[in-house]
Amino acid sequence: RLQPPQLIALVYLLGTLLATALLHLPGVTAPGAALGSIDRLFTATSAICITGLVVADTGEAFTRFGQVLIIGLAQVGGLGILTFGTLFAFLVGRRVNFSERQHLAQQVSALDVGGVLSLIRIIFLYTLAAEAAGAALLALRFVPQFGLGEGLYQAVFHAISAYNNAGFSVVPGGVGQYAQDPLVSLTLCGLIILGGLGFLVQLNVLMHFFQPRRHRLTVYSRLTLLTTGLLLLVGTALILALEWDNPETLGPLPPPGKLLAAFFQGVTPRSAGLATVDISGMTSASLFLLIALMFIGANSGSTGGGIKTSTFAILVGSAWNMVRGRGELIAFGRRVEPENVVRAGTVTTLYALLVATSFFALLATNPKLGFTHLLFETVSAAATVGLSLNTTHLINDPGLLILTVLMYLGRIGPVTFAVAFSLRSQQGRGVKYPPERDILVG
Amino acid sequence: RLQPPQLIALVYLLGTLLATALLHLPGVTAPGAALGSIDRLFTATSAICITGLVVADTGEAFTRFGQVLIIGLAQVGGLGILTFGTLFAFLVGRRVNFSERQHLAQQVSALDVGGVLSLIRIIFLYTLAAEAAGAALLALRFVPQFGLGEGLYQAVFHAISAYNNAGFSVVPGGVGQYAQDPLVSLTLCGLIILGGLGFLVQLNVLMHFFQPRRHRLTVYSRLTLLTTGLLLLVGTALILALEWDNPETLGPLPPPGKLLAAFFQGVTPRSAGLATVDISGMTSASLFLLIALMFIGANSGSTGGGIKTSTFAILVGSAWNMVRGRGELIAFGRRVEPENVVRAGTVTTLYALLVATSFFALLATNPKLGFTHLLFETVSAAATVGLSLNTTHLINDPGLLILTVLMYLGRIGPVTFAVAFSLRSQQGRGVKYPPERDILVG
Ligand SMILES: [K+]
Ligand SMILES: [K+]
Repeated sequence: RLQPPQLIALVYLLGTLLATALLHLPGVTAPGAALGSIDRLFTATSAICITGLVVADTGEAFTRFGQVLIIGLAQVGGLGILTFGTLFAFLVGRRVNFSERQHLAQQVSALDVGGVLSLIRIIFLYTLAAEAAGAALLALRFVPQFGLGEGLYQAVFHAISAYNNAGFSVVPGGVGQYAQDPLVSLTLCGLIILGGLGFLVQLNVLMHFFQPRRHRLTVYSRLTLLTTGLLLLVGTALILALEWDNPETLGPLPPPGKLLAAFFQGVTPRSAGLATVDISGMTSASLFLLIALMFIGANSGSTGGGIKTSTFAILVGSAWNMVRGRGELIAFGRRVEPENVVRAGTVTTLYALLVATSFFALLATNPKLGFTHLLFETVSAAATVGLSLNTTHLINDPGLLILTVLMYLGRIGPVTFAVAFSLRSQQGRGVKYPPERDILVG
Repeated sequence: RLQPPQLIALVYLLGTLLATALLHLPGVTAPGAALGSIDRLFTATSAICITGLVVADTGEAFTRFGQVLIIGLAQVGGLGILTFGTLFAFLVGRRVNFSERQHLAQQVSALDVGGVLSLIRIIFLYTLAAEAAGAALLALRFVPQFGLGEGLYQAVFHAISAYNNAGFSVVPGGVGQYAQDPLVSLTLCGLIILGGLGFLVQLNVLMHFFQPRRHRLTVYSRLTLLTTGLLLLVGTALILALEWDNPETLGPLPPPGKLLAAFFQGVTPRSAGLATVDISGMTSASLFLLIALMFIGANSGSTGGGIKTSTFAILVGSAWNMVRGRGELIAFGRRVEPENVVRAGTVTTLYALLVATSFFALLATNPKLGFTHLLFETVSAAATVGLSLNTTHLINDPGLLILTVLMYLGRIGPVTFAVAFSLRSQQGRGVKYPPERDILVG
């Protein structure tokens, strides 16, 4: 019988293989687009893992059929991670422990939905509603611009892409044309942020909004909302400051346009992948900021990737706590269990080791492509962001395979993968080992 | 009354200021060398923090008097960190806890030396003996090459530089001329490795070697010896593979020379700073490897820097342990206390945040110098390594000040600094906070 981490790992593996088969169907690619099998595997993985890295422009290399397939796969991948994330976050969230099934049941019943299937139905309906609202707003711009049929298609495509943090775009001329358009930019940002919060936090906020007495904001909601808000603020402010005069990015825009574009580029690295300015023209400092924001990512159980906001908050909080000589980590009047602190360290360590080894392998296989470009690409793939310094199409097949594996591992999470495929421990639980205090650390 | 972390932070701050004053003395710089106050502050910090980054060639820009001052400051800085590291590692090693003074006393008496002052004397004598042995070996090459006086001077200078992981060199023509010279290369490597093991591990190994029954290898010794050995092996093998054909590094050397130079370049990033090939000609993959090795660094309480081998080993071991579903981290039959695991996470988090913010500030102040070069320089300074892609002399004054602070914080360690200057916690220890289990991590 499969355990939750194994189920997630297996479902996304099968999903990737099925998606690759679908992208081999006739009529998927545009005439003249030469996409090999590895390109299709890469694109299929990018879609199902809602990453958005592409070896060729999605709007040009794929037919309408191919585009619908890609955004459909992204929608399936997004719904899958929202469902798994919501259902299993409490199981996989710490160590796998089946006594916590009951705990999950309590959570679900605490949501007043009366059952897991109902919860899944609510997630599906809620997602569709959010995307429909986003598509309606986008249609206000796209229908006048492209006509009714094409305008609606573009609106739906980009609403799905944004809410799922999928990073695919097929708009002729690129998303960059809307850098100064508050309607399109803010709608996309709103969808990206909501998708990156995850279902439970959105639901908790909504219920708290309508019934503040009955439904309080959970500690997890507060922690992730605060962290998300701070990261958006810091990201926007630093990009604004660093790119203000840069002729390749914000330079040509008037001040309101600079602000809007800085906000969009502050939102997108965690983990949307759409961009309204040419990322590759940014200063090195901004690129490093984007890399850091990508690495941190969005919320657990959301459509975003990265080590997750709560992981980052707990690491920083715990470090600060230890420095101040405090015994326990307190967040909003609640004690954070030490096992969560150790788990935050484990998640980050495994993520960092995964990024480091993949980056090293990419550098070794693609020595001409340069340090910055490949580091950006590696973190973008691992955190399922999909931003690129126009590098992806230059990477050779071994490199694309490395990134394919990385997108998969980044999507299911290195801890889930490691737990899923590790052998059961042989360590006798009855054996007591004497403690070793005299290990110097740091 | 000062606590140990405050004492270390203050001693190295005063040491840096005194060293800066000394490097302003007349007759320190060679005629024609235009070194401003910030250059002297930078060089003084680099010496006292035994980093080895230089804004100008030490052999050319400084008179013999200046050179002796610099290597003397490095020797003082090295002895200081060996002494503090050995004495206070157990105090600072975990949370500052004065009941552990007794624990330290037990350690000291366990060494059979009968007192702290005796221990300091032993450290001094042992260091001098190791450096004298190294100098004697180096003199076998340097005296025939440079004559008696100059040869002895070069031998003593480089023995001190290598054992203290100081990274300064004044040999005419550079250390690169000895890339194929086993005598010089292996002597320097031996001194670097010994210095990077730290005093307690060396002493433990020596006593175990002479009286294996009476003195067992401690868990800390085994852990750090194993980690050091693995890192040296992996570093050497990967550099050999990546640089074998590179015409700018190992390419022109015959196979034995390639092996020797790969070993030297595998040893030096943790944290010596001397190099026998042109690091700036290495492939991007090798540069990233060096960055990773620099970040990991050498042992606690040694002349090396970085997050430390034991921190790295505990992080990786703990992550693997958690993945395997094991409850306790066991090393060599002993249980590693959870507080050490949390501390390893704290050390690494603070180090990573320090490197990230300094790198970001360097990129913002020196936008023309490039991502790779500045990342390499930042990690080199933070881990007190001293390797550079020939970038240091191009960095402007604000950048040099950032690196100066970074060398200082890297030397005393971000945790020591943070503990030393943080306010005492106001958190009531009597207050019990309810636990919060429902925080999703990763
Ligand atoms: K994405
Ligand atoms: K050094």
